Amino acid sequence: MLKVCLIGASGHWNYAADGIAEDGGAVLSGIAPGPEGEDIGPAYAILCRNGHSPERYEDYIRMLDEQKPEIAVVSCYFNDHARAGMEAMKRGCHLFIEKPLATTLEDLENLRRAYERSGRHLAGMFALRYSPEFLTAWNVIKQGMIGEVRLLNAQKSYKLGTRCEVYRKRELYGGTIPWVGSHAIDWIYWLSGERFTSVCSAHSRMHNHGHEDLEASACCLFTLTNEVMATVTLDYLRPDSAPSHGDDRIRVAGTKGIIEARDGNLFLTGGCDGGDVRKLELLQGRNIFRDFMDQVRGKGQCLVSAEDSFYVSEICIKARISADENRVVPL
Amino acid sequence: MLKVCLIGASGHWNYAADGIAEDGGAVLSGIAPGPEGEDIGPAYAILCRNGHSPERYEDYIRMLDEQKPEIAVVSCYFNDHARAGMEAMKRGCHLFIEKPLATTLEDLENLRRAYERSGRHLAGMFALRYSPEFLTAWNVIKQGMIGEVRLLNAQKSYKLGTRCEVYRKRELYGGTIPWVGSHAIDWIYWLSGERFTSVCSAHSRMHNHGHEDLEASACCLFTLTNEVMATVTLDYLRPDSAPSHGDDRIRVAGTKGIIEARDGNLFLTGGCDGGDVRKLELLQGRNIFRDFMDQVRGKGQCLVSAEDSFYVSEICIKARISADENRVVPL
Repeated sequence: MLKVCLIGASGHWNYAADGIAEDGGAVLSGIAPGPEGEDIGPAYAILCRNGHSPERYEDYIRMLDEQKPEIAVVSCYFNDHARAGMEAMKRGCHLFIEKPLATTLEDLENLRRAYERSGRHLAGMFALRYSPEFLTAWNVIKQGMIGEVRLLNAQKSYKLGTRCEVYRKRELYGGTIPWVGSHAIDWIYWLSGERFTSVCSAHSRMHNHGHEDLEASACCLFTLTNEVMATVTLDYLRPDSAPSHGDDRIRVAGTKGIIEARDGNLFLTGGCDGGDVRKLELLQGRNIFRDFMDQVRGKGQCLVSAEDSFYVSEICIKARISADENRVVPL
Repeated sequence: MLKVCLIGASGHWNYAADGIAEDGGAVLSGIAPGPEGEDIGPAYAILCRNGHSPERYEDYIRMLDEQKPEIAVVSCYFNDHARAGMEAMKRGCHLFIEKPLATTLEDLENLRRAYERSGRHLAGMFALRYSPEFLTAWNVIKQGMIGEVRLLNAQKSYKLGTRCEVYRKRELYGGTIPWVGSHAIDWIYWLSGERFTSVCSAHSRMHNHGHEDLEASACCLFTLTNEVMATVTLDYLRPDSAPSHGDDRIRVAGTKGIIEARDGNLFLTGGCDGGDVRKLELLQGRNIFRDFMDQVRGKGQCLVSAEDSFYVSEICIKARISADENRVVPL
């Protein structure tokens, strides 16, 4: 059995819990709060209700030392990802870690060094690559159906609701561009197959309903290699009455066709064989953590590599710096 | 009868021809090529087929001097708009002029001076304000149904086909950002009610199918007053097999709701009274030139003011400069 421990329960720890439940060959043996001490009570209760029986710790270092898990899952306060990840890697764990991997370039660099020394596997929680519409989009592009990618427009729009402390303090949260934007930035990187060359961003805290530092709106303009370009639009303005929490979209315009993921669907216009706008049949979605466990077992490759995880995290932080400092940042 | 003459037939002269045909109180008395001499033959033939009987001139100055029209309609080569417009205003004509009003800041300033001296009316051909979905969007926003506008995402996507000389030479064309982007930039200005504060743009000529200087893709990031922000995406990548020539869209996210114009429809999510995504009933579209003629008659006000026309044209040119020079341009 593959032993897995959770550090923190502020992000998408459920990817791991769900993956373990589906897998059958892994066990969730421990859970502890992240470095700054979060309330893991609600997550612990959900885990127990869902058939997991992790030992509950107050100190994640003690948990790592006692449990000696093969995989550490880090989803604590956003500014603590890197610190907790380093401690886990130092102890020989493979690392499944919330994105962005860090909220500062310094922390990211420290984590990268720990990763390189460790010889272990690492994947960031860029789980939307495994959603049916994005997975299918990637396949369509790989098959050459839209020709060469030229232009990408990504959107993340969330309901704000009432969010806890971690979203309200920049030093914990890291900013809306890294937190909400990381998926959008990852799609652009992954679907274009290019490298980023520059970013220009803007963000605003206005109308954030008392959420202090949280930016309720943000936009980025990216240039990439081969003169590919991309826009990202991010907001917490999605009305409470909307049918879903998030309105995730990407439009990818290529030399032979245009695909668009929207409302969980994927539309293709044109393409190698021409044609009007049509809805594509979607591939089945998969759980990212199952793929990561298989990679750890030497039986496959997670769609999200360690290199991708570090690269996209770095771009996220630099895109936020662009907005903070009102300037174009070369990448 | 209101006498109208056409200078050039490279742009949207049909707005004027259609408006005159609908109006009943105006006559198209002359047509001539712009300063650099275009082929107005095809336009002349269409006009005659549609019941107009303009006198055909080879020299627009002679036409203006002989016909003495109340209104000159300028839609010649894009770099000649300003020059032809100035000649018409000097002769006391009201001016209905293709957008952008000029392709350089110098020409725009010269035209502005001619306009200010003239005491005549002027409107740029920002005719999409009169399309049902955009007109309705404007009304919805004016009524406060989406609260305060925070974020706008505009798209223009065109089929490229095979385009004539004027699109192939930067000195004639002016660039894809001013030509295709002018509508998108105008929507942002008009629907937000804000002023632009900065722009960062990118554009690329790659994959333009031999159209020399024409940029096949472009993106802009705008900041506006009150920390409002906007993206613009522009391309000539729309597949030939798509159902329409253009794929015009705008999404406007406000503090109480989000509206989106897409495929000729308008969708509202949330809004003052909450609610799921719903398609709105659209106002009837109108012909911009009929409104302009009424303004000239002192009977109303065109939705596009002279001030708007100059301002948006200036922003268009500066957005192109941002892309040409790879820098943020303050506005």
